[in-house]
Amino acid sequence: MALMTPEQFEDSLKALKPRVFMNGKKVESILENRNTRTVVEANKASYEWALDPRYKDIMSCYSPLIDDVVNRYTHVSTNTDDLVKKAEAGTFTAEMLGTCIYRCVGYDAFHSLASTCWEMDRDLGTEYHPRFLEYLKMIQRKDLSVAGALTEPRGKRSQRTLDWPDPFLSLKVVDKNADGIVVRGAKINISGAFASHELVVLPQSAHGPGEEDYAIAFAIPTDAEGITYVCQYSPYSAERDNADELDELGNPRFGQRETSMVIFDNVFVPWDRVFHCGETKYSVKFVTRFAKTHRMTCGGTCKVGFMNQIIGACKLIQEYKGLDKVTHINDQLTEMVVLRETGRACGLAAANKGQEEPPGSGVYLPDELMGNVAKLNICNSFWRAMALAGDIGGGLIVTMPSLKELKNPETKDYVTEFFSFGSDEPTENILKVHKLLQHWTAGQHGVATWHGAGPVAAQKIMLQRVVDFEHDKSIVKQTLNLKEKEKKKN
Amino acid sequence: MALMTPEQFEDSLKALKPRVFMNGKKVESILENRNTRTVVEANKASYEWALDPRYKDIMSCYSPLIDDVVNRYTHVSTNTDDLVKKAEAGTFTAEMLGTCIYRCVGYDAFHSLASTCWEMDRDLGTEYHPRFLEYLKMIQRKDLSVAGALTEPRGKRSQRTLDWPDPFLSLKVVDKNADGIVVRGAKINISGAFASHELVVLPQSAHGPGEEDYAIAFAIPTDAEGITYVCQYSPYSAERDNADELDELGNPRFGQRETSMVIFDNVFVPWDRVFHCGETKYSVKFVTRFAKTHRMTCGGTCKVGFMNQIIGACKLIQEYKGLDKVTHINDQLTEMVVLRETGRACGLAAANKGQEEPPGSGVYLPDELMGNVAKLNICNSFWRAMALAGDIGGGLIVTMPSLKELKNPETKDYVTEFFSFGSDEPTENILKVHKLLQHWTAGQHGVATWHGAGPVAAQKIMLQRVVDFEHDKSIVKQTLNLKEKEKKKN
Amino acid sequence: MALMTPEQFEDSLKALKPRVFMNGKKVESILENRNTRTVVEANKASYEWALDPRYKDIMSCYSPLIDDVVNRYTHVSTNTDDLVKKAEAGTFTAEMLGTCIYRCVGYDAFHSLASTCWEMDRDLGTEYHPRFLEYLKMIQRKDLSVAGALTEPRGKRSQRTLDWPDPFLSLKVVDKNADGIVVRGAKINISGAFASHELVVLPQSAHGPGEEDYAIAFAIPTDAEGITYVCQYSPYSAERDNADELDELGNPRFGQRETSMVIFDNVFVPWDRVFHCGETKYSVKFVTRFAKTHRMTCGGTCKVGFMNQIIGACKLIQEYKGLDKVTHINDQLTEMVVLRETGRACGLAAANKGQEEPPGSGVYLPDELMGNVAKLNICNSFWRAMALAGDIGGGLIVTMPSLKELKNPETKDYVTEFFSFGSDEPTENILKVHKLLQHWTAGQHGVATWHGAGPVAAQKIMLQRVVDFEHDKSIVKQTLNLKEKEKKKN
Amino acid sequence: MALMTPEQFEDSLKALKPRVFMNGKKVESILENRNTRTVVEANKASYEWALDPRYKDIMSCYSPLIDDVVNRYTHVSTNTDDLVKKAEAGTFTAEMLGTCIYRCVGYDAFHSLASTCWEMDRDLGTEYHPRFLEYLKMIQRKDLSVAGALTEPRGKRSQRTLDWPDPFLSLKVVDKNADGIVVRGAKINISGAFASHELVVLPQSAHGPGEEDYAIAFAIPTDAEGITYVCQYSPYSAERDNADELDELGNPRFGQRETSMVIFDNVFVPWDRVFHCGETKYSVKFVTRFAKTHRMTCGGTCKVGFMNQIIGACKLIQEYKGLDKVTHINDQLTEMVVLRETGRACGLAAANKGQEEPPGSGVYLPDELMGNVAKLNICNSFWRAMALAGDIGGGLIVTMPSLKELKNPETKDYVTEFFSFGSDEPTENILKVHKLLQHWTAGQHGVATWHGAGPVAAQKIMLQRVVDFEHDKSIVKQTLNLKEKEKKKN
Repeated sequence: MALMTPEQFEDSLKALKPRVFMNGKKVESILENRNTRTVVEANKASYEWALDPRYKDIMSCYSPLIDDVVNRYTHVSTNTDDLVKKAEAGTFTAEMLGTCIYRCVGYDAFHSLASTCWEMDRDLGTEYHPRFLEYLKMIQRKDLSVAGALTEPRGKRSQRTLDWPDPFLSLKVVDKNADGIVVRGAKINISGAFASHELVVLPQSAHGPGEEDYAIAFAIPTDAEGITYVCQYSPYSAERDNADELDELGNPRFGQRETSMVIFDNVFVPWDRVFHCGETKYSVKFVTRFAKTHRMTCGGTCKVGFMNQIIGACKLIQEYKGLDKVTHINDQLTEMVVLRETGRACGLAAANKGQEEPPGSGVYLPDELMGNVAKLNICNSFWRAMALAGDIGGGLIVTMPSLKELKNPETKDYVTEFFSFGSDEPTENILKVHKLLQHWTAGQHGVATWHGAGPVAAQKIMLQRVVDFEHDKSIVKQTLNLKEKEKKKN
Repeated sequence: MALMTPEQFEDSLKALKPRVFMNGKKVESILENRNTRTVVEANKASYEWALDPRYKDIMSCYSPLIDDVVNRYTHVSTNTDDLVKKAEAGTFTAEMLGTCIYRCVGYDAFHSLASTCWEMDRDLGTEYHPRFLEYLKMIQRKDLSVAGALTEPRGKRSQRTLDWPDPFLSLKVVDKNADGIVVRGAKINISGAFASHELVVLPQSAHGPGEEDYAIAFAIPTDAEGITYVCQYSPYSAERDNADELDELGNPRFGQRETSMVIFDNVFVPWDRVFHCGETKYSVKFVTRFAKTHRMTCGGTCKVGFMNQIIGACKLIQEYKGLDKVTHINDQLTEMVVLRETGRACGLAAANKGQEEPPGSGVYLPDELMGNVAKLNICNSFWRAMALAGDIGGGLIVTMPSLKELKNPETKDYVTEFFSFGSDEPTENILKVHKLLQHWTAGQHGVATWHGAGPVAAQKIMLQRVVDFEHDKSIVKQTLNLKEKEKKKN
Repeated sequence: MALMTPEQFEDSLKALKPRVFMNGKKVESILENRNTRTVVEANKASYEWALDPRYKDIMSCYSPLIDDVVNRYTHVSTNTDDLVKKAEAGTFTAEMLGTCIYRCVGYDAFHSLASTCWEMDRDLGTEYHPRFLEYLKMIQRKDLSVAGALTEPRGKRSQRTLDWPDPFLSLKVVDKNADGIVVRGAKINISGAFASHELVVLPQSAHGPGEEDYAIAFAIPTDAEGITYVCQYSPYSAERDNADELDELGNPRFGQRETSMVIFDNVFVPWDRVFHCGETKYSVKFVTRFAKTHRMTCGGTCKVGFMNQIIGACKLIQEYKGLDKVTHINDQLTEMVVLRETGRACGLAAANKGQEEPPGSGVYLPDELMGNVAKLNICNSFWRAMALAGDIGGGLIVTMPSLKELKNPETKDYVTEFFSFGSDEPTENILKVHKLLQHWTAGQHGVATWHGAGPVAAQKIMLQRVVDFEHDKSIVKQTLNLKEKEKKKN
Repeated sequence: MALMTPEQFEDSLKALKPRVFMNGKKVESILENRNTRTVVEANKASYEWALDPRYKDIMSCYSPLIDDVVNRYTHVSTNTDDLVKKAEAGTFTAEMLGTCIYRCVGYDAFHSLASTCWEMDRDLGTEYHPRFLEYLKMIQRKDLSVAGALTEPRGKRSQRTLDWPDPFLSLKVVDKNADGIVVRGAKINISGAFASHELVVLPQSAHGPGEEDYAIAFAIPTDAEGITYVCQYSPYSAERDNADELDELGNPRFGQRETSMVIFDNVFVPWDRVFHCGETKYSVKFVTRFAKTHRMTCGGTCKVGFMNQIIGACKLIQEYKGLDKVTHINDQLTEMVVLRETGRACGLAAANKGQEEPPGSGVYLPDELMGNVAKLNICNSFWRAMALAGDIGGGLIVTMPSLKELKNPETKDYVTEFFSFGSDEPTENILKVHKLLQHWTAGQHGVATWHGAGPVAAQKIMLQRVVDFEHDKSIVKQTLNLKEKEKKKN
């Protein structure tokens, strides 16, 4: 079987030497640095689950491409059942990790590549699709982790790309020869790349004539020459660096969430890993197909899993404080459940209404309308869930002392007594649950919710493109028996 | 084939003589009274569509009970596909009528009856289920329209039923003999009963020991002796009574929406039409199974259809006024679409996640959680859609003159000129679309949305009953690696 | 004293002969037609209150212009205390009437005229301000009711005024001579004009070069030759026309709310009543000063009074049904109170922060920022209050039978029994309170809330014009100790 | 003059020796520990401003008590102008600090003490009021900083205080003698106490018979024997501890916001500092008067100042990215302004409608209704402002690298290039503004907003107590001309 064990995964990472910086310093080992380690742990868990009898149905599946069982995160959906499973996997991984499953961008990028390479070949006679399939088969056979990258720095939004003084604010081909292409630029806000084997790169924007050098998609090993990762560094990073023990933290094993900017400083990509190069008309298809797939993911699946953690923590605090019968708290929990289930319903609708795109390609993508609806809803509902959790959880979420106090002989008894709430639960547990809610309500997840899978403005634009008002108008005309429009004599 | 033509339906109503009052006067013919006529028209349309090649897949289906094609609104769902079709039929009828499909309460009541009669027979050895099936087969064979009735006047909410000074504020058995039972009381807010052939009656509330006489369900012809209908009378009723031509009205054929209170003044029901009588423990099952079915209907299907009309009318006004490119209006239309599709997604999720209940019964009911979520969402979103339509549509929605002015030689030219908005569209059409939005935004539908399928407080209670927080709590415990609770030494 | 008695007011109306149409027919007497009568009653009440010892402090005030007590609705504010009183009067009249005080547009237009005529005279050497003061003194001495008119039909929104095929979709000067001007066009959505003595007309829009003929403001008796009123006709109008007794209705004396379009078909206005004619640059000042004054009115005062009625009715129904202790209803009432008081706070802030505009003019106008904020808030909160009332009030609000049933011997006992809710309150009272909520939740007030004082898009534009972000930016720069911007070396 | 210079303030702190723990360790000097230092800085700034000609009108005032100018935060309001100034000071300090003005709880507690001590003396003949005035005069003369403390750990919420196994979960008198009282227990979530001179303690809850030992209010030097501070420790604390330079941080000088729990382990309080001891009936008055004062502060003033920073930062980012003309961003900025101004309006209304309480006391407190409305609104609107800022600010807010990268030769050029957005602004400034938004949108302020001045449930309860529905009901009865209730003949 192709699947690696978690240990094999970790070993495989040791062979990679990505160039990574964090907090102004070089990260000598991503396996040992506490913050980069969280991404390793999250990816490693995805290998555990694919082999775990309890979870393997959701985390692995049969791939006809290599006639073997593969990790689901390397499989391109071939029907709506696959899409439903994909949605369920998104929720499962999110609730198990309490942070991003860093492999989802790559997974969604595969869908976009499979669909658009097929279409380019059909339309243009190119040979991208077989090339991509070979690449994907290699990934499946070796059971590799693949991150994805789209977002770019970009220049002044009021200017066109070609007018930017610095042409590299979008990733750009700077050389092209018989062996491959050389690119310069950066991708930003990239989840988990440094702890993956491979990075799949798509364009971020539509491109037009003259922008051929920006119309690119390719795959690259994460430690290819010329690639540099500059990691985010947040208060949560500092806290993790500073902790005596990881279990002082809100999410001990998997952390808050890690991203980096990925700089491509004249990086060479051989042709057999290039999937789009200059066909400007198709850039928008790479983007929108990725976006619709990723909007189902971000809008209808992972936040559902996050909300499970939030709701569970609120419920525990309610119980610790003896507030089980208090109406307004039960109402708030109910509201959170409604928000969560609405997200789930939209995600499932996007999957269930998914279509083959383009027809004949064998690639199934979620329904555009429902995917965008899912994402638009979840942005507001995740903030609302955070806010409600902040109300239920109480001020202690953000005023709690360090868990180290429980080991400080001078304060330990005070903390134990006064944060017991009169409950029989060990104070340590009580404080840890508050710490988890701190992780959820006072961290990066609110802002991240807006921007994962693109800002809401992008979803609205897409909706305005795909909504067909003609049916609605015809219903009105029928109800009112409106006469056909005849030119008025003014 | 069992299906009646619309003409046969209308003829069949002529044979009925229900005792109906409206606006302080007796309604001599429900076929001729303009307001009761709208219900006749709506029911009649359901016969048209079942025979119409364009719509018959949605409005009819095969019934194994009588081995023939029947109107879908007489069919009890036997799998989740049936539930999905049921959801689609709800949206279809709503958008075609622009008001209630009056048959949905009866349709949903059939689901509750099929499930609960089966369970009572299994548990108690009663023979309600075969009795109900015989009744249902008769309905299918004769292709009858069946209304449903649950809501009751009730006494002071702070008192128990048995403490009410007037025992008849809930429908009550006052006599029982070898032939049947005699009931007294009333059902209120009942949609469309007087223009149906039959009325199916369920309890409104759970009942306990001592309340046996309130624990009843039965079917009765709508013109049975002792039944009186006192119809609602709204400003819209007066407007319809007063119009010169129906096309002056917002929804010319099907009207605003008609209900009545149904008074049972010592009405006799023979045993073969009694489906529940005294088994107090089961009253709550009749109620909750109806509720969950009807919440999918009201929450996830019919308002979706209504919103199609609202959105279509807003879009037309936008076009008439030359506002196609105006961002804030396109944003509002987008918001309405998101609200609509969210409702649809929740309805579909309720159907797709439906289960056989009780197992073995062969009856499929929607998912409780999703049905309640659908209803809770739609209440707020329908009001929001109304509000948005009021903003887009403009003040004219509520300040428009009568369409009669277009026939008044003294005002016709003025109205034609000044309500043209400079558009080529005939002013008559422009005003009619505004009139339709008046129907939607300045009528009964907002309030009705709260109360159809029960008030939101009921949905919240139900959610609090069915939501299982244990999974969420266990996820939290795993994330934090919480130690098992050990009694604290205080 | 200048103040008329209500009887004198009614007599004074008899002398007027406005040309009024409603429901396709001529209104022979606005005093007798039931629908136009409601406006007469509302205006008449404003005369009662000005003389009533309980209310005269709010409804009358001393005018230095004529050295006498005048009705407050004819007084231009000369300090912030006047503005606060103006706000309080708006709430008082709204809660007493349960509909529009039809005099508020004229009252607000006076503020705009006093300010802008003064400024034009100062800047241009015109003599509009003394002319306007003479007119206003006449109004105060005779204690006349004055309606105001701004809104116009307008042509395609995507075209400029001068490009409209029909130039009269905005009110336009068609002739000008030594005696005065002649105008053609229409004003739409005009509240209560036909039952006032005078009509004050302002431009609706900013005007530019070439649009001199649209840059007009003037006053005109309501029955001037060439003026025609085409009244709105709504379901509520039909219901009032049709009622046996007015107390069957939701707001028996003052009705739902009446407007009309006012057509000016070559109407002559003498120069001493013309206050703006061709000074295109100043049209926008007429509009924005009226708007800011009227936004305080619509946003911060009248809806507050409306909500008093809505909240009172909900509270009564809660009591009738014995629901006093039910948490979710008390929560909803609390929410309504918060919405109401927020509206009030914004209205008061707009008044308290009012300024003299232009400095030296002696005219006080509300604060632009707060006036717009008040209006933006109230649109959403009034819809929310309607929605909450619909939930609390129950389905009966929109399914209730005619109050005539209480006089119908065949139904009276049933209705009395079954709509008692087990309460001691007479069923007639119970039904009437429901009818009042029907008036509020199923009528024109929701839509009207958006459009009174202009659509929200207009408020947003105005806010974007007046908000100064420099202070906020400077605070950020100070907090971060940002270095002065130096050109980056790229 | 009584006012200290900032330097004198800092010197005065050196004389204090509070026992403080943070992150499991003792804080040897609160002046030197980076996190406690932020509170010192904030308090110190309040001394700067009181002497700064630009700000002294807002930050100082004349106190008749000592016939001298005092810091406003030591002055009890004696009229509504004082309350308005108090509101303005709250906004001013918040926008200048970008975090809590730690002196506001003490300031608000003074209002409660002045009012309630006066009332107890009047009712019970006690001598608390002169005692409190002596204390307050001392504070004013010495120009001391005073923190306040109310919130307590409390036991199981479903039990009564007297039933808690641990009686010290609320602060309790454990001994009483001729010299004073001895108390044990803790106060939690206490802002800034360790860097103040004095701590004023009020009860948190109403108390009843038997709870005399909990009915206490007093003042105590912050380093009194037996007092221990256990400080909060958040990710932001760790980040500050870890930084190379403070200007890497989001709010370099004043920090995120610091609180601690304050443990009273048998602390002695002499009688001349005891202001409430055993008069259980009055505990609720201490609480509610503090609450109404503090709700105006938290609801209507400080969040307004915070929003200035948030809005300013969003505006700068909009400009850096060249997004000035983008409609949806301008709409979002407008929405934020509306939220901010609504908060301000409610705060001002609470101040302007303030009353002397009790009459004769000379103490002015904000209007109860408006204070609660302000707080209820701001909770939701502050979360909404955070969310909007998260959308406008972009993903970089939470994915940005450390500012240290700008000093790292290996990454500096990349970061400078790729986070320029094509703007001329130095990248350092761009990143710092993002860091400030991280401070606001991914920190403790959201949760804190709910709980400052008590949770929303408390505000709702208070509103339900003070709202008078009788006026609203009477308006309805008048509109409908409802007949007096006569006992119905059933």
